[in-house]
Amino acid sequence: MNQDYIQADEWSIIEEGFDKQHVKASESLFSLGNGAMGQRANFEETYTGETFQGSYIAGVYYPDKTRVGWWKNGYPEYFAKVLNAPNWIGIKVFVNGHEFDLATCTKVSGYKRELNMKEGWHKRTFSAVLPNTIEIKVEVTRFLSLKLDEVGAIEFKLTLPNSDAEVSFVPYLDSGITNEDSNWDDKFWNTTNVSTSGNRAFIEAHTMKTNFKTCAFMQASLDYNGKSIQGKLEESQENFISMKFSQKIKRGEDLTLVKFGGYTVSRNHDEGELVSAANQALDQASILGFKGLLEEQKQAWANIWEMSDIVIEGDIKAQQGIRFNIFQLNQTYLGTDSRLNIGPKGFTGEKYGGSTYWDTEAYCIPFYMATKDEKVARKLLKYRYNHLEKAIVNAQKLGFSNGAALYPMVTMNGEECHNEWEITFEEIHRNGAIAFAIYNYYRYTGDYSYIPEMGLEVLIGIARFWHQRANFSGHKKKYVILGVTGPNEYENNVNNNWYTNYLAQWCINFAIEQLGRVKEGYPNDYKRVVGKTNLTPTECEAWKKVADNMYFPYSDEYKVFLQQDGFLDKDLVKVSDLNKTERPINQKWSWDRILRSPYIKQADVLQGFYFFEDNFSTEELEKHFDFYEPFTVHESSLSPCVHSIQAAKLGRMDQAYQFYLRTSRLDLDDYNKEVEEGLHITSMAGTWMSIVEGFGEMRVINDQLSFNPRIPEQWNAYSFKVNFRNRIIKVKVSADEVTFEMTGEKGILIMVKGKQRELLPNNKLTVG
Amino acid sequence: MNQDYIQADEWSIIEEGFDKQHVKASESLFSLGNGAMGQRANFEETYTGETFQGSYIAGVYYPDKTRVGWWKNGYPEYFAKVLNAPNWIGIKVFVNGHEFDLATCTKVSGYKRELNMKEGWHKRTFSAVLPNTIEIKVEVTRFLSLKLDEVGAIEFKLTLPNSDAEVSFVPYLDSGITNEDSNWDDKFWNTTNVSTSGNRAFIEAHTMKTNFKTCAFMQASLDYNGKSIQGKLEESQENFISMKFSQKIKRGEDLTLVKFGGYTVSRNHDEGELVSAANQALDQASILGFKGLLEEQKQAWANIWEMSDIVIEGDIKAQQGIRFNIFQLNQTYLGTDSRLNIGPKGFTGEKYGGSTYWDTEAYCIPFYMATKDEKVARKLLKYRYNHLEKAIVNAQKLGFSNGAALYPMVTMNGEECHNEWEITFEEIHRNGAIAFAIYNYYRYTGDYSYIPEMGLEVLIGIARFWHQRANFSGHKKKYVILGVTGPNEYENNVNNNWYTNYLAQWCINFAIEQLGRVKEGYPNDYKRVVGKTNLTPTECEAWKKVADNMYFPYSDEYKVFLQQDGFLDKDLVKVSDLNKTERPINQKWSWDRILRSPYIKQADVLQGFYFFEDNFSTEELEKHFDFYEPFTVHESSLSPCVHSIQAAKLGRMDQAYQFYLRTSRLDLDDYNKEVEEGLHITSMAGTWMSIVEGFGEMRVINDQLSFNPRIPEQWNAYSFKVNFRNRIIKVKVSADEVTFEMTGEKGILIMVKGKQRELLPNNKLTVG
Repeated sequence: MNQDYIQADEWSIIEEGFDKQHVKASESLFSLGNGAMGQRANFEETYTGETFQGSYIAGVYYPDKTRVGWWKNGYPEYFAKVLNAPNWIGIKVFVNGHEFDLATCTKVSGYKRELNMKEGWHKRTFSAVLPNTIEIKVEVTRFLSLKLDEVGAIEFKLTLPNSDAEVSFVPYLDSGITNEDSNWDDKFWNTTNVSTSGNRAFIEAHTMKTNFKTCAFMQASLDYNGKSIQGKLEESQENFISMKFSQKIKRGEDLTLVKFGGYTVSRNHDEGELVSAANQALDQASILGFKGLLEEQKQAWANIWEMSDIVIEGDIKAQQGIRFNIFQLNQTYLGTDSRLNIGPKGFTGEKYGGSTYWDTEAYCIPFYMATKDEKVARKLLKYRYNHLEKAIVNAQKLGFSNGAALYPMVTMNGEECHNEWEITFEEIHRNGAIAFAIYNYYRYTGDYSYIPEMGLEVLIGIARFWHQRANFSGHKKKYVILGVTGPNEYENNVNNNWYTNYLAQWCINFAIEQLGRVKEGYPNDYKRVVGKTNLTPTECEAWKKVADNMYFPYSDEYKVFLQQDGFLDKDLVKVSDLNKTERPINQKWSWDRILRSPYIKQADVLQGFYFFEDNFSTEELEKHFDFYEPFTVHESSLSPCVHSIQAAKLGRMDQAYQFYLRTSRLDLDDYNKEVEEGLHITSMAGTWMSIVEGFGEMRVINDQLSFNPRIPEQWNAYSFKVNFRNRIIKVKVSADEVTFEMTGEKGILIMVKGKQRELLPNNKLTVG
Repeated sequence: MNQDYIQADEWSIIEEGFDKQHVKASESLFSLGNGAMGQRANFEETYTGETFQGSYIAGVYYPDKTRVGWWKNGYPEYFAKVLNAPNWIGIKVFVNGHEFDLATCTKVSGYKRELNMKEGWHKRTFSAVLPNTIEIKVEVTRFLSLKLDEVGAIEFKLTLPNSDAEVSFVPYLDSGITNEDSNWDDKFWNTTNVSTSGNRAFIEAHTMKTNFKTCAFMQASLDYNGKSIQGKLEESQENFISMKFSQKIKRGEDLTLVKFGGYTVSRNHDEGELVSAANQALDQASILGFKGLLEEQKQAWANIWEMSDIVIEGDIKAQQGIRFNIFQLNQTYLGTDSRLNIGPKGFTGEKYGGSTYWDTEAYCIPFYMATKDEKVARKLLKYRYNHLEKAIVNAQKLGFSNGAALYPMVTMNGEECHNEWEITFEEIHRNGAIAFAIYNYYRYTGDYSYIPEMGLEVLIGIARFWHQRANFSGHKKKYVILGVTGPNEYENNVNNNWYTNYLAQWCINFAIEQLGRVKEGYPNDYKRVVGKTNLTPTECEAWKKVADNMYFPYSDEYKVFLQQDGFLDKDLVKVSDLNKTERPINQKWSWDRILRSPYIKQADVLQGFYFFEDNFSTEELEKHFDFYEPFTVHESSLSPCVHSIQAAKLGRMDQAYQFYLRTSRLDLDDYNKEVEEGLHITSMAGTWMSIVEGFGEMRVINDQLSFNPRIPEQWNAYSFKVNFRNRIIKVKVSADEVTFEMTGEKGILIMVKGKQRELLPNNKLTVG
């Protein structure tokens, strides 16, 4: 895909012209979601060209049996894959008995697709000439309702500009679907009932093995000149049901089919009540009608944007980028259900599987903390607390004991479900991100209560893990951590990854600090937790010994911490000296070549500098940034945002801006040539950070918000809002000044460019 | 399995008593093979207990599609798996209509199983009481003919000691078989024809994907009191055919069913001629009859033993061990077909897949060179020459160029077919073993011709690989080799594995040396090879620069070369201090724990000392042996033999003896608790080396054989023969003296304990 494929627009993603080569990419980019379900932007009508069909239900997954040539002890039995759910959007369209299919039309003109992010809907308009020479004009609008999150709505409007003909619509449900991404050749849906009632139909199906019960449903109605045309049941098979609506129409007349559809699932309803719940949802949708439900949709999105919008003036592409990121994050996770989490591809694809990675703690929590109520972030923390026992079991599998906890690299339900040894067994820094998020949550919200109630137990399990995972090197006379994979997954099984060692040390110190604080301030919780975990002072001393004597690889020559032992033995050719045809290296190079190269997939040492910036001087940051960035290929979506933030801090606004574009338009401009597989959802929170924490340099320092805003020269102004301790603070930055406004009852002290200022309700504060 | 399960016997493997728990282990241990086919010692009659059914045809394999969670560039598309072939041994037995099955008999007594290694046959004798209370006495003899290597023979003798009854034999062929080891759920045999002719039957089937055509065949005849009983076709299905022979017999009478069976394959016959070839093979077998064919078998094995036997006096278990190893090697590979190689499990199991590993060059060639004609070793070298182009393509896949060759880690046909990245992409030392074998072959046989004819090209491809694979470390100011897996596969993706670096240096130097020698002595070959490879002096200089400046990790503290960078950072707890319940660690520990431990799967640095012992003093060997052996768990079958040889060299005969038992009785005593999966064939050549090169300390020094024999105190004497440059030299070692005898036309100078001696034909040389 080229960079100009998507039209620049402040509020919409727009594609003009129909190009079969772009269908799969656009199916990703125009995806819809409402937190409870989501789907790729597949066409409603039959399409026989290349397509990647996907409709997903939050929390519904399938366990792919782990299949490897050589089993290694400790492998999880399965990999939980995001699962393509029964299709409810399908509407076959026939004109004089000939099926309409964009892949076979002799001409397609005026094709335009719009994803309206402001209002939360997707629309296609075009004219097409069928092989039988009849031309049709089509306008199809679709959205997944935020108001009724089990329901989606489609309005399919068809006109015949040049001829009379009989038009038939065949809306259907289909549970005979497959997955794009593995599931090998397993059948994974078991359809138990196909039924119909009036203009409604239902397919009840449950997932094999995991036994999630679902009911896919639909209701269809056809309008012809304000008259409702009756449909009839067409086909009812084992896993398919369709209705048929036919009408002869004259040139210039139009027909409008409205289809409501969606899923009810056993996560939310008694499993015997799925059909009746579906009927209720359809009743509610019917009362509002397509237009009424769409109005509700606009309002619901307006409410989301009211709090989370970032406005950029003077740079449409940058504006479009950030809104795309915020929109997709909100389509994926709204913080309403503590059993859910934020899958790396959201509802836009299947790759990676699982719903929860360290991305949630490292990237997403800051976004949700600032743009929603703090309860949303607390829900995400609680999710990990709920999985603590499973993290302990996971660590036991790998040979750890005494309550040491290793959180899974990938999970749906707390169990590890990733099966590459170098990741599952070795990418243990994830444990650190979870501890960091506890710290970050408290730092931002001031709500300490999570720690005595739940967090302390998590911190103890994590400290125990690090204590056991390190070993004393008689050679170095220090504790070392051998055989790990850092955030830079282009290195596997390395020794003394600086980031991991640093996190390990930090986690132990943080746990000990919180033990002290809880002991003092929450003696009952302390007693409960110490009793439950059998923690003794001797054990804490043993932890401390490891933290105090941790080894950190360092180069005297370059005066930088080394990403890992031996990093300087590599052939240190900078990325800029690589031939462009070699990139992305993960598509061009064999794995061994990547591993022995110096190339960094995503910030690793710099990720540590990002988390713990207070512990390093700006000069140190600059030295490390200048050493590592030239070797960084940013082939992880999580990389550019951290670099953007750090470049901004170093006052390198051009570089920060380039990284900003790369993170915000990663998918829109398909930097890594993989958008067909789906969007990179979790890194989208990093895009938000790159504006707020990067350009805005927002920090929390000693319970105060601090800002040191900069602006890229390409922009006239930008503004964002954050929810900080029950105040909504709006920040607007232009080249000349920064203005702050707040809503809330009481004023607040903030730091601006190093100086303390008082911000009062309804009283604009301007700093020149 | 316990150590005393197999009866000690000089010439036979004997199991007494029927134990269902041991069936799978015994199926491995009693396996039969004749180089062209082989099979686990499955019962002929139906057995419903736990069993691992396996019958294998040399060179017939199936490509399992590579299935990994995350595809890495360079992965081979498939893993060639050893394939269970149609069953031809099956004979159902019914007594008064009740099927005989050892799993359901109410009593089994006098059960004895013997694998007679001297004569090459397998026999079971026992009495069993069927659920219908009838007792039967059974004696079943089976062998795979060396004389007619497409044919196997079974004699099934049944007597009724206590009652009259009707006995039916139902010999059958069955191509509806599955694989024990993956092939996922693929169907992999396609049966095309099932036919019968008189007392013969045929199933023609070909492998899916690889399209190897085979005909499994059988012929059966029943003898009752010297009278031949006619059978009739019983069942003929899509992939099954059986005949039925029934006879009422009286108490004390016996019935003998003789079944010939086997395979004809398209590797050896026109694919339209497989049935007629089968008929010819059966004709030949019929002429000889079971007894005649068995006599031929005894003679053929006598010929093999004549040259390859090692006699150990005074230690039956040691004797049995070495013969078991020599027997199995000869069952697996006889050196008659240069398209075949020596699979790690031979015909005894499916694990590992592929037929060719570096085991062939590092372990098997010395055995075959000394116990067969030198042409056999040359065939094995030629096998690799034939695959040079594929090795170049393999290297290209991984990003190498200019004719660099990387031989596959595992192959059936020259293509890489292993798909763990840490092995396939990184265990590159295999390239060195192939170069070493060229050197070793020439050193032993004195036949230089392979090098100008073929070997030089191989050496150039390998040198090019090492040159490109190393990189200059600006930090170390040396060439380093990053991201490798050494012979010790309990380390992955390490930097500067000493063994690999040493081999790389040696390969380059050896290639350059041979280039000089060929240029001088074989100018036409030189011209041809240089022309074909576009080799220039500048390129050789570049190689040389890498070799001359290779980095070797070394510890000043311990005065040893380090297995790899960072080895000393490990928690250096010796194996002897590990709790026994933790072992074998590959069954008890997670992979990450193994990787970060100091434990060594098999000799790594010591493997280098073994290959290149002339380059190190005995003191250096001792220092390295004492440093590394205490961390070695020997969980690779290839480990104890090298240690035995080196312990003997260091005069530590007790330790050498223990390692000898471990290598020679690895499977018989099931040291690694995995014999059910099949035998460790390639390491059996290491057992041979541990006597000849270890206790006998046989070397070739400047074109002379040299001996420095020692004897374990548990032995009275041992003797072996080697074929050295057209002389057969027999060596017998006792505590007091060593005697040498030779056959051949001309005498030869040998070194004994450092002194030169002349050995003349038919003239015993005794050294006190």
